[in-house]
Amino acid sequence: MADTIDRTALQQFLLRMGDNTLILGHRVSEWCGHAPVLEEDIALANTALDLIGQTQLWLDYAAEVEGAGRSADDLAFLRDVWDFRNVLLVELPNGDFGQTLMRQFLYDAWASIMLGRLQKSADERVREIAEKAAKENAYHVERSADTVVGLGDGTEESHTRMQAALDYLYPYVGELFESDATDAAMVEAGVAPDPAGLREDYDALVGRVMADATLRLPEKAYVHRGGRSGTMHTEHLGHLLCTMQWLQRAYPGCRW
Amino acid sequence: MADTIDRTALQQFLLRMGDNTLILGHRVSEWCGHAPVLEEDIALANTALDLIGQTQLWLDYAAEVEGAGRSADDLAFLRDVWDFRNVLLVELPNGDFGQTLMRQFLYDAWASIMLGRLQKSADERVREIAEKAAKENAYHVERSADTVVGLGDGTEESHTRMQAALDYLYPYVGELFESDATDAAMVEAGVAPDPAGLREDYDALVGRVMADATLRLPEKAYVHRGGRSGTMHTEHLGHLLCTMQWLQRAYPGCRW
Repeated sequence: MADTIDRTALQQFLLRMGDNTLILGHRVSEWCGHAPVLEEDIALANTALDLIGQTQLWLDYAAEVEGAGRSADDLAFLRDVWDFRNVLLVELPNGDFGQTLMRQFLYDAWASIMLGRLQKSADERVREIAEKAAKENAYHVERSADTVVGLGDGTEESHTRMQAALDYLYPYVGELFESDATDAAMVEAGVAPDPAGLREDYDALVGRVMADATLRLPEKAYVHRGGRSGTMHTEHLGHLLCTMQWLQRAYPGCRW
Repeated sequence: MADTIDRTALQQFLLRMGDNTLILGHRVSEWCGHAPVLEEDIALANTALDLIGQTQLWLDYAAEVEGAGRSADDLAFLRDVWDFRNVLLVELPNGDFGQTLMRQFLYDAWASIMLGRLQKSADERVREIAEKAAKENAYHVERSADTVVGLGDGTEESHTRMQAALDYLYPYVGELFESDATDAAMVEAGVAPDPAGLREDYDALVGRVMADATLRLPEKAYVHRGGRSGTMHTEHLGHLLCTMQWLQRAYPGCRW
């Protein structure tokens, strides 16, 4: 980490990365024991585990940069809604299996591009985390894309559900590509790319998969935002935190 | 309160009464803003409020008898699953509107008989609480019985749903009439009746309402138990506590 870097901006950037994987990982973990077939149950649990593993790396570094004596666990389990910096997309409810995999693909596609860029980061730790995460993501995006295609171009019932999932989720995609002062600072320091600059690759990838899936991308470009800036989360995040943070809230400081 | 009474048994009895109203009250409150019509939304919110009000009285007294310096709020918000003494019936998920009202009736019918008996308790505080609660319950049971009849003897769709609700909930009714050493101690002290002794009146009342509702009482007499003894709760109670206790868990000791 360069000495001249804006540490507050770097910490915010790391929180955004780690909160995305934490909240999505928790959401996906909710499927454990409930998926339609065993193979998918295991795949979802493994995906969740990968995402939580990436969270550990991002939030370890965020806590280190913050320098306030908090650990990654403290950040995960002792912050309240307004301190989370994940995009709204990842905190949305799972819905049915198709909706969960559609959300996963919309996230995975973004992560595949973002992690590729971050492997050229000027920050060594960011580079290392991105390299490890990119390997896991390569599997995730292949699997979620295949499932979106399989269900989209499947039966009438599965097609209808996947189109409904895409219509519901797509207005939350735009937030992934918004830029603010934090992003500008990261660009300036060579730590991370401008999110807006990932959009073209993303649209190409998502467009290709949706075409294979015979699904129609919504035309309206409305963007639900507020998660990554922390100004506004959906009602769903609070409920998720109730469950996710219960143990540390009810038994403060417990360890094993 | 007689000096000779078994205080531990009395405290357990009061917890059972107060935990029933607390957990059912919380469940019913989950409908706030979600009921099918405004009138029902308000009615459900009022029912929840009555139940939480009764909880305050029962748990105030339980805390007093316990004599450990805990308040009713402490009992409500700082106990974990295994310390709750409510019957399993009241912690079950709401399901649809019909299922919620079926559960409400199955509870209200029991409460109407129990509270009637408790108005003759040898314990003055129990008598006072029962008198207040009975007035509220008289309205609750009239309303829930009317709704069960209206939906049971309604359309084919509503009839099917109400029969399904009754089939699902009825195996949880038996627990209301189980007796153990705590109950024996309450009978001995003249504080409360033997739960088993309420069954005949209950069956008569429920039988009459179900007949009007054209619903069939399940024949199998399986009894899910464990709530009032605290030996086993359903998985649903933990999730309910996550939400209900969040504020006091996340911000210990907060007051307003």
